[in-house]
Amino acid sequence: METKQLLVKSVLDAWNSRVEAANKLIDSLSDEDLQNEVAPGKNRGLYLLGHLAIVHDKMLPLLNFEAQQYAHLEDAFLNKPDKAVVDIPSIKEILNIWNTVNSKLAAHYASLSADEWFEKHSSVSTEDFVKEPHRNRLNVVIGRTNHMQYHVGQIALLKNKY
Amino acid sequence: METKQLLVKSVLDAWNSRVEAANKLIDSLSDEDLQNEVAPGKNRGLYLLGHLAIVHDKMLPLLNFEAQQYAHLEDAFLNKPDKAVVDIPSIKEILNIWNTVNSKLAAHYASLSADEWFEKHSSVSTEDFVKEPHRNRLNVVIGRTNHMQYHVGQIALLKNKY
Repeated sequence: METKQLLVKSVLDAWNSRVEAANKLIDSLSDEDLQNEVAPGKNRGLYLLGHLAIVHDKMLPLLNFEAQQYAHLEDAFLNKPDKAVVDIPSIKEILNIWNTVNSKLAAHYASLSADEWFEKHSSVSTEDFVKEPHRNRLNVVIGRTNHMQYHVGQIALLKNKY
Repeated sequence: METKQLLVKSVLDAWNSRVEAANKLIDSLSDEDLQNEVAPGKNRGLYLLGHLAIVHDKMLPLLNFEAQQYAHLEDAFLNKPDKAVVDIPSIKEILNIWNTVNSKLAAHYASLSADEWFEKHSSVSTEDFVKEPHRNRLNVVIGRTNHMQYHVGQIALLKNKY
């Protein structure tokens, strides 16, 4: 296997395995668990899950895949803190959005050639990309995997809470 | 810049920026904060910090850089849960270990050529590496960055605790 392909595989394997681990964690939690704050006075599980879903939704246009679908939920889960927006989707709906967005990403990931991963993402200009070629699609996935892990570690605190 | 170098840069930049962010977080926390559990009944901040330090220490032999230095602390921070080992280093000592280990890793990272990142790590056999060439040094850094993020997200809950 060519080095380029190897690297793409490492990055995508890491993303896929972390999404899988997140889903296993979520499956082990009840709706009630997800209603709880991960620590006293901190974000609720459902907010963090909604936050991850919206950040992943925004990856669709960022990676030049397709339009974002849930922009109307950015206030609830991204721009404003937990509980600032009262009218938010149910946990069932949030989980549905999370799964929908991750499935879309997985399908697009699988369709890209190794070379296409080294093309620029949509928030860097063609001019800047010449000077900063590391600002490519694969770099977005590396950063977003790290972001996911940060919050999944917090959601994990809802397990066996006492 | 060659694709291989670009990718190595992306992975190392992600590691370095996450270590930097972790240090900024740690600087913002008092020793008292780090004595607290990140959530009721969960690991203390100092345990998670010790855990990360020991996992990073173990990367030194895993990446074929040098011998591990703090194997004697594996029981306290890796093999056993928080509070199972009573005699553990002070927070000041843990921070010192964390910084020492990360400095060593940074120096080794900087000395490696792009090609050397694609060599096998020490826990995969030469035979298996032929079949699974993605099990290289760079892949270890991708995985350990994700691991760090998982626990840093938890330590971050100690900020402005009330």
